[in-house]
Amino acid sequence: MPVKLETFVLNTQPKDIVDITLQIKKALASTLLKDGIVCVFTASSTSAISTTEFEPGLVQGDIPKFLEKIIPYDRDYDHHKTWGDHNGGGHLRSFLLHPSLTIPFTNSNLILGTWQQIIFLECDEKNRTRTVYCQFLGE
Amino acid sequence: MPVKLETFVLNTQPKDIVDITLQIKKALASTLLKDGIVCVFTASSTSAISTTEFEPGLVQGDIPKFLEKIIPYDRDYDHHKTWGDHNGGGHLRSFLLHPSLTIPFTNSNLILGTWQQIIFLECDEKNRTRTVYCQFLGE
Amino acid sequence: MPVKLETFVLNTQPKDIVDITLQIKKALASTLLKDGIVCVFTASSTSAISTTEFEPGLVQGDIPKFLEKIIPYDRDYDHHKTWGDHNGGGHLRSFLLHPSLTIPFTNSNLILGTWQQIIFLECDEKNRTRTVYCQFLGE
Repeated sequence: MPVKLETFVLNTQPKDIVDITLQIKKALASTLLKDGIVCVFTASSTSAISTTEFEPGLVQGDIPKFLEKIIPYDRDYDHHKTWGDHNGGGHLRSFLLHPSLTIPFTNSNLILGTWQQIIFLECDEKNRTRTVYCQFLGE
Repeated sequence: MPVKLETFVLNTQPKDIVDITLQIKKALASTLLKDGIVCVFTASSTSAISTTEFEPGLVQGDIPKFLEKIIPYDRDYDHHKTWGDHNGGGHLRSFLLHPSLTIPFTNSNLILGTWQQIIFLECDEKNRTRTVYCQFLGE
Repeated sequence: MPVKLETFVLNTQPKDIVDITLQIKKALASTLLKDGIVCVFTASSTSAISTTEFEPGLVQGDIPKFLEKIIPYDRDYDHHKTWGDHNGGGHLRSFLLHPSLTIPFTNSNLILGTWQQIIFLECDEKNRTRTVYCQFLGE
């Protein structure tokens, strides 16, 4: 069973939520694998990976409001005293939501619901260039 | 190393929390694999996979109360304006809890604690028929 | 592709957050694998695995405060009525944060950000001896 690493780059703005389903589908196609899993990973402590139905009500409204409610961004976090930066809320969001999501595929297709998209969440406060790692294992 | 996909179906009611440990153990047995991992996945944006001790205090009391506290169900979510439906709270719960959980196994047994069961969380508001996907990789 | 299970033991105190990155790097080195994934798993329903920048502001301040805010520990949880114990808050934290995290590696190195460490979260109320399971799949 081969291991195939595919990556792609995102240029993000603060609090972006990006639909990365198509990039992962393309990466799967390039591996020529038929059956297996892909571990989608962001090598950062201020971003995260999850899934949602990618429609404006959720990704521009409900999800940002929910995150702001449970982890308000503009607070005086202890993290800020360590480095003098201001992204403690972004660290907490990444910690909570996780930087990793594993998705199965079969017959060269990701197993996803019709209204289920894979999303990258930028949780930092500055524009960033992010590499998303897709480690495919399969046959 | 082979890849083996096993699936099973759940008929759920709104906000059900279902112990799926036995189904996954049976699926593992049917693969004849000894060592590896299984990615347990729900192909939906209104359900989730996690673990807990499956006892009534937690699954009928503490977990539903906690979810209702951080993501109240009967609110006027922005998602409802998009489609006219009413399950925005279910989408948020699925987004937060994730549709995927990866569990190792060794000597043909899932590595789980004595009081640790794998659970499927129905987060939608209607009765649903759900397929749970178990992608096994191992030897 | 081989499967290699490595384990290590942690002696934890209540609410400890432990940086386990080095143990996982050593485990990876011992497998002699170059490319693949590792599923880091705690076989318990009162502990969890995630990532964060491991610095005191976050791990001694912001993360414990955040967990205490959304899941206060010293409450009268329904779980306590089942067994007469007092760790319902620990169960909820483990349920929310998950006991599993999958991380890719390439060229014998974990794919991690510079300020991204893998952490074990003790969510129980007593001193515990915990085994962390690292299931490596790769080549």
